[in-house]
Amino acid sequence: MKTAVFGTGPVGQTIADKLNSLGHEVMLGTRDVKASLQRADKDSFGRPPLKDWHKEHPTVKIGTFAEAALHGEFLVNATNGTGTLPALAAAGAANLAGKILLDIANPLDFSKGFPPALTVCNTDSLGEQVQRAYPDVKVVKSLNTMNTYLMVAPRSLPSTHTVFLSGNDTGAKDRVRELLRSFGWENNEVIDLGDITTARGTEQLLPIWVRLYGTLGHGMFNFNIVKGEVPK
Amino acid sequence: MKTAVFGTGPVGQTIADKLNSLGHEVMLGTRDVKASLQRADKDSFGRPPLKDWHKEHPTVKIGTFAEAALHGEFLVNATNGTGTLPALAAAGAANLAGKILLDIANPLDFSKGFPPALTVCNTDSLGEQVQRAYPDVKVVKSLNTMNTYLMVAPRSLPSTHTVFLSGNDTGAKDRVRELLRSFGWENNEVIDLGDITTARGTEQLLPIWVRLYGTLGHGMFNFNIVKGEVPK
Repeated sequence: MKTAVFGTGPVGQTIADKLNSLGHEVMLGTRDVKASLQRADKDSFGRPPLKDWHKEHPTVKIGTFAEAALHGEFLVNATNGTGTLPALAAAGAANLAGKILLDIANPLDFSKGFPPALTVCNTDSLGEQVQRAYPDVKVVKSLNTMNTYLMVAPRSLPSTHTVFLSGNDTGAKDRVRELLRSFGWENNEVIDLGDITTARGTEQLLPIWVRLYGTLGHGMFNFNIVKGEVPK
Repeated sequence: MKTAVFGTGPVGQTIADKLNSLGHEVMLGTRDVKASLQRADKDSFGRPPLKDWHKEHPTVKIGTFAEAALHGEFLVNATNGTGTLPALAAAGAANLAGKILLDIANPLDFSKGFPPALTVCNTDSLGEQVQRAYPDVKVVKSLNTMNTYLMVAPRSLPSTHTVFLSGNDTGAKDRVRELLRSFGWENNEVIDLGDITTARGTEQLLPIWVRLYGTLGHGMFNFNIVKGEVPK
């Protein structure tokens, strides 16, 4: 399937890599293709520049946000939270309309250092902001509650763990569920929380995620919802 | 040990019951003892009135917040989030000073119905508000991320799950850890997130907790942090 991934950072690269290996025709979307491919330095995570990554993944196309949105039948938002609405504006409402957008971004504010606060929370969420801005897009929030590596390699944890779905369109959530299965997620690991307002719940997992990252010293962990029997 | 439990709702009753069964000398603290014991109706959870509960737990004393605080060497805040600061003000700073306060309350705002929002979050937390208001008190936030039943009966879930600690005083956290062990928690289920600012992380689990409660239809679940190996 023709798939667009907005954002060329670690999340965008990892998702693009996995989709590419699964046979999707992937286009990465970025603000300025030339500038993105000219960067020679490692990024803030110490990863090689995009042009080196692209040499290893020559079948993945790189275009502007608008070109990627036009290309994709299925869209993935892997931009930074603060870059999400500008990226979608650059992509253009007409290129997004009617499509499913898997939204992985979190509204993290790193302007005051680590741990980051949220730029929106409690009575609103980034997922809802995107859905309100593009009512014709079928926004599904998912995968935003874990590190990038685990998103596409869920079996690398020793036991069952959880991925959440939030979105208004049941069919779109079913499509994301299929995608998750192709990434290695088991059906019983997926919890559909309900409509897009439930993204408030998953985005507000980030404040404890960043503190667990600090306490454990790494990001190879995830939340699992352990369910029991209701006592009689 | 002489233990005070502020709050006579389901959380207060459940914690008091467990502490009583473990041999603590428990006093429940409430705003108006006479009014609390006169209530004849079931509460909003359909539970019998406090006076019936008290008949079944005659060794648990019931006093004002100030009497309970004076009685307790160890304090538990099981009030509603919106009632926490008024309850502690009624308890009196002098009666609280130097003691450990296990803070279980969550700053939930039910004024607009279900699911509730938070009254404080993101850049502050109820745990921090309490610690700032009573700098001499050793505040430890814990047990606030699950339903009351599981707090004192953790083995009723089928597998390992997690309870978090947040607080500035290591000795106080060790004491709470001991208490958790006496409730049935395993050492490897307790994660110390760090100082009291990390209560922002656990209190912000409530927005997803209430949505999971809606999705699953019951509160017999908890978060488990599944840890893996860092890839080389």
